[in-house]
Amino acid sequence: MHSTTPIRRFGASSAGRFVVLAIGLAAMTAYTVPDLARAAGGWLSASLWCCLAYFAVEGFVRYRAAAKTGEVRNYLASASGIVDLLAVFPAPIALAFGVAPATSWLFAALWILKLAQNSPGFALLGRVFMLEAKPLLGVLALFLIILVLSSATMHMIERDDQPGAFGTLPASLWWAVVTLTTTGYGDEVPHTVLGHLVGSFVMICGIATFGLWTGILATGFAAESRRANFIQTWDLVSKVPFFQTLDPSAIAEITHMLRRLEVPAKTAIIRRGKVGDCMYFIADGEVEVDVKPAPVRLGSGSFFGELALLGDSIRTANVATSQASTLLILDLADFRTLTAHHSELARAIDAEAKRRTTENLQVRELQIRSGATPS
Amino acid sequence: MHSTTPIRRFGASSAGRFVVLAIGLAAMTAYTVPDLARAAGGWLSASLWCCLAYFAVEGFVRYRAAAKTGEVRNYLASASGIVDLLAVFPAPIALAFGVAPATSWLFAALWILKLAQNSPGFALLGRVFMLEAKPLLGVLALFLIILVLSSATMHMIERDDQPGAFGTLPASLWWAVVTLTTTGYGDEVPHTVLGHLVGSFVMICGIATFGLWTGILATGFAAESRRANFIQTWDLVSKVPFFQTLDPSAIAEITHMLRRLEVPAKTAIIRRGKVGDCMYFIADGEVEVDVKPAPVRLGSGSFFGELALLGDSIRTANVATSQASTLLILDLADFRTLTAHHSELARAIDAEAKRRTTENLQVRELQIRSGATPS
Amino acid sequence: MHSTTPIRRFGASSAGRFVVLAIGLAAMTAYTVPDLARAAGGWLSASLWCCLAYFAVEGFVRYRAAAKTGEVRNYLASASGIVDLLAVFPAPIALAFGVAPATSWLFAALWILKLAQNSPGFALLGRVFMLEAKPLLGVLALFLIILVLSSATMHMIERDDQPGAFGTLPASLWWAVVTLTTTGYGDEVPHTVLGHLVGSFVMICGIATFGLWTGILATGFAAESRRANFIQTWDLVSKVPFFQTLDPSAIAEITHMLRRLEVPAKTAIIRRGKVGDCMYFIADGEVEVDVKPAPVRLGSGSFFGELALLGDSIRTANVATSQASTLLILDLADFRTLTAHHSELARAIDAEAKRRTTENLQVRELQIRSGATPS
Amino acid sequence: MHSTTPIRRFGASSAGRFVVLAIGLAAMTAYTVPDLARAAGGWLSASLWCCLAYFAVEGFVRYRAAAKTGEVRNYLASASGIVDLLAVFPAPIALAFGVAPATSWLFAALWILKLAQNSPGFALLGRVFMLEAKPLLGVLALFLIILVLSSATMHMIERDDQPGAFGTLPASLWWAVVTLTTTGYGDEVPHTVLGHLVGSFVMICGIATFGLWTGILATGFAAESRRANFIQTWDLVSKVPFFQTLDPSAIAEITHMLRRLEVPAKTAIIRRGKVGDCMYFIADGEVEVDVKPAPVRLGSGSFFGELALLGDSIRTANVATSQASTLLILDLADFRTLTAHHSELARAIDAEAKRRTTENLQVRELQIRSGATPS
Repeated sequence: MHSTTPIRRFGASSAGRFVVLAIGLAAMTAYTVPDLARAAGGWLSASLWCCLAYFAVEGFVRYRAAAKTGEVRNYLASASGIVDLLAVFPAPIALAFGVAPATSWLFAALWILKLAQNSPGFALLGRVFMLEAKPLLGVLALFLIILVLSSATMHMIERDDQPGAFGTLPASLWWAVVTLTTTGYGDEVPHTVLGHLVGSFVMICGIATFGLWTGILATGFAAESRRANFIQTWDLVSKVPFFQTLDPSAIAEITHMLRRLEVPAKTAIIRRGKVGDCMYFIADGEVEVDVKPAPVRLGSGSFFGELALLGDSIRTANVATSQASTLLILDLADFRTLTAHHSELARAIDAEAKRRTTENLQVRELQIRSGATPS
Repeated sequence: MHSTTPIRRFGASSAGRFVVLAIGLAAMTAYTVPDLARAAGGWLSASLWCCLAYFAVEGFVRYRAAAKTGEVRNYLASASGIVDLLAVFPAPIALAFGVAPATSWLFAALWILKLAQNSPGFALLGRVFMLEAKPLLGVLALFLIILVLSSATMHMIERDDQPGAFGTLPASLWWAVVTLTTTGYGDEVPHTVLGHLVGSFVMICGIATFGLWTGILATGFAAESRRANFIQTWDLVSKVPFFQTLDPSAIAEITHMLRRLEVPAKTAIIRRGKVGDCMYFIADGEVEVDVKPAPVRLGSGSFFGELALLGDSIRTANVATSQASTLLILDLADFRTLTAHHSELARAIDAEAKRRTTENLQVRELQIRSGATPS
Repeated sequence: MHSTTPIRRFGASSAGRFVVLAIGLAAMTAYTVPDLARAAGGWLSASLWCCLAYFAVEGFVRYRAAAKTGEVRNYLASASGIVDLLAVFPAPIALAFGVAPATSWLFAALWILKLAQNSPGFALLGRVFMLEAKPLLGVLALFLIILVLSSATMHMIERDDQPGAFGTLPASLWWAVVTLTTTGYGDEVPHTVLGHLVGSFVMICGIATFGLWTGILATGFAAESRRANFIQTWDLVSKVPFFQTLDPSAIAEITHMLRRLEVPAKTAIIRRGKVGDCMYFIADGEVEVDVKPAPVRLGSGSFFGELALLGDSIRTANVATSQASTLLILDLADFRTLTAHHSELARAIDAEAKRRTTENLQVRELQIRSGATPS
Repeated sequence: MHSTTPIRRFGASSAGRFVVLAIGLAAMTAYTVPDLARAAGGWLSASLWCCLAYFAVEGFVRYRAAAKTGEVRNYLASASGIVDLLAVFPAPIALAFGVAPATSWLFAALWILKLAQNSPGFALLGRVFMLEAKPLLGVLALFLIILVLSSATMHMIERDDQPGAFGTLPASLWWAVVTLTTTGYGDEVPHTVLGHLVGSFVMICGIATFGLWTGILATGFAAESRRANFIQTWDLVSKVPFFQTLDPSAIAEITHMLRRLEVPAKTAIIRRGKVGDCMYFIADGEVEVDVKPAPVRLGSGSFFGELALLGDSIRTANVATSQASTLLILDLADFRTLTAHHSELARAIDAEAKRRTTENLQVRELQIRSGATPS
């Protein structure tokens, strides 16, 4: 998102926004409870106005950023722009038109849409729905067919017995939705034997259509997730010098195997003595390997954790990030496959591992000679 | 569907049919509500007759088309023919036999089946059910076994305590269906401790069988969807001259990677300045690339959007369809894999991209020299 | 199942067993309804005894078959033997001990287990549960942890407010099961704000654990289903002479692609004029191709339907089975991949297709010369 | 877990722990039922103290083991340490502070967390949640958005009609959670037509988000499960001398195909006369093949069951473990693929199979000559 920078400058960290959002929604919720509104009405109102101000400023920052690059129209038509508009204007406008405050502030519920601006997985979900639109519409059609036919049947069967619950088709449709989604409020329940049979059929259809729906989304998600991962990993892989000697086909293969991991500064990655089943490449950042006599720092393009994969799976040193880093994880399973297919890679990792072990042993020998306690 | 053409000639666009269907179903629903029927009975009745007439004409067009090719029997036995018959005849016949209008028009619920004629994903869903028939029947058997055994047990446990709800086996079966599908109306609930234990077991079995069901459908759907996609894409791929130099094995590989996209005329495909992660081949139709000094048109067999994949991922021009087109999308992940495996393809795309960039730069130079503002 | 033959000899077709089972269960169900039992008690009782006799004979046939091969112990310990015992003995024993008939006959519910003897997908489902036992137990543990902790919490929160529904831990556990499985009877509902928060958390945990459960079963099912298919297809492939020239690696590849289809006699496989997207190999049986002047019969080892894949996808003749047959289906997608990888196969299919087309054209020419109407 | 040994020494088998856990939880549950507590209060209390003592000793053993290696801090911060603390201290502390026993012992519910220490699939589930954190958070955001917007809308629609159920936003939110998770208690149900429409939309959204959630977990689980299996199988494969002649790429391929099976001593693996569809490699332990004249024992590194795969799929001998063993299973499908790709492996298995068959035949001939009855 190109507008992140001005927002950041305005001081709105992601965590801060969540706090404002939570306060705003809590205040709005409390406002609808008469007792609370009476007791703390002023405070609630003030909180709501503060949150509104926050979102107004946030929207304004984004607007100005768009105005500078002459993309105001694009911004206002974008999802982000619409969310900003919906967050700021409805509540004040309603108040201005004389709507009761308790009702006007209900529009603050629209602030929850701010979550969509922040959530990293949202775009992915949208793409899955797009990708699988056809079969999903097929399931929806199936759902509607069952809905209409079963509610007409139920209306015919039960209308004499229960004129309240099944006497009209709209009432019957409500029963069908409640049943087909297996929600089952129990406010409308068939009483006749025939009604029970139709009801059973609808429930079983409900879990069948639901199963289809889930199956479609699972399939679409698996495909899209593989794709998204590849695209985000590709750029990082090209930054690791170690991989640059490989031919394009091998790079594509490796990219499918690696997983990204964003780690904040001062975070432990590896603990000595634990079982290790993966190695790490540093795409960006720096880590500190806690070896004797002095810790070693590894920067972008280096790798670590390979000793556990080559040897007896036990980590030989603590490793922690010294600054926020992006790591690429290669699991044991993929490591085996990779080194089997690309012997030059296997040799390079092996050589580095030997160099490190030798160095370590020499240091340890020195320590022992000089009387230091090996830990 | 070979009968689409006469229907189209009759003027029934897909959107039009949906409107007729929606009006018909709404009128039918309103007809069952006494107040509405009394207030607007005439209008509702008229709407219903109009919709019926529409479906009758539609069915007749299809019938005549079948009659011309001597396939009347095939048509009447086909799903489409049966839907047409069910849409047209039941309601008038019921009226003719003197059934009350409010009841007769309930048969209009069958119009919803028209959705099945139109829905593109329906055939796919049907194939998945066929493909996985054996394990699905296994789950159904499991479902029935749990149903019968649990309801007999519950009848034994609770019949003395609640003769109304569990006094007979049919009542007990109704409880079991409502519980096993996790619908849970709450009209029949066990009260004894033993009943609670059995009930808990049934609920857990319910989500287990449901999980199996979903798992089976997900598996079947993934396989069938891959297949359906290949078959529909294959013909389009063979129309793109660019791919015709490849050997069959490479074409099969590419076909698995491409996704079809049907785009109406005058629709934006690419926007300048956005991040791009795919390129497009035109299987059918025409697009307009908005470059200076004059827009360029690309027809069937051309490709575009490759610059973002080769360069810094930023789109360099707006592209929109000038007529309804069918595009084939190649994602970044697959683009990498493909060019890695087929260097001749990589070279061809590269050469074309260079040609385009050079041309563009020359134009831009000319513009600058001639004092035009580069946008 | 090695004991199928004696059962068949006894005359028990699969459909017949289902009818007996359905009658038995219906009679048992009716027996628990006082009005029906009073009105038709004699008939119901007679039906039940008949069904029991049927299952007793069936069990006895199996027992004798086992006795002949000296495997009585194996039979009695097998699932099939236990089902036979449970179907025959409990009801008469209960009657003999003087239990009321309405209660004794409830043991007839055990007859539903006969479904497990017949269902082809049952073994597969069992294998999936075995294969994924570890993660499924993990989910079960998670389920139990949430169950116990949430019910203890809810008991603490709501016991003063609702001593009936949450006053004891068993009552609270019942609420937790009903909520965690998203059944939601509504017989016990939290009333306090804190109770609502805990309840919301439990519901969301419910769909999360359920999602995990489904995901695990989907994964296990996909793997097991692929395996089962391979094993059943392998033997059939080895019967088709066409494939015998291939090397083992290619045969393994083909086996993964083919799908089995059991077709009864006199069933249409292909209809002229329809779109075709697969070809067929005959593993066992015979089909009749309806070409002029006289239909051609193809036996085991032949293939058909390849013309649509090579040409314009339109079927050129009707094909129907002349006896019960087992076909192997090769879809267009796999056909492309296969012929791309194995050119000798492509050539063989091509040669046969050309031979057939030529023959067909010659026949047609003859027809035209002799004045026959080509259809 | 490095602390298993001291626990074992303390005599706490896994089954024993489950029994203690079950007794403890049952006693705690009974303690909350006034009648039971009055009748058997002393016994319940004693049981609870015993279970507490057991868990205290267990925790102490673990603590001492950690103290010996100087890792007390690590232990107390680990999940295992926290569970130990929560199991032992809360209940006595509450009692010491004078809380009523019935309430204090509710903390015994925390004992259920002991399941997490033992469950093998737990770590796997945790990893899946980590791996798919981003899209799962996306679904959660979607869930929250629907929740807040729908409850605000419902509050607006229904508050005049049902001030109790929808009069405040918290009440409305409770309805939304109950509906969106398809739990459907039925304690709050919309009555107006508009309310029904919104409610229907919420239910359908409920199953949609749920489907997404399941799809994501299924995808993540499939990936993680493949990985976990590879890592655990890899070490076992390297112990089988038979595979050591293969190149690394082939070993990686085989590792993906094999499934581990832990078998206790004296367990039947293969029964003569059954259909066999897999062969076994012994990674660890010993099996006894029941051949005439004397049973043969096969130790680590041997394989068996290959005859059924090479011949007519019928097992020719009984095989049972003579001690607890770890077997690697190779299914028919993978066996075919493997021997097709690696002819040297195929030859080795074939040679061994021939040797065994010949030996067997010779023995049988001897038996026949010497008048023994072949069985």
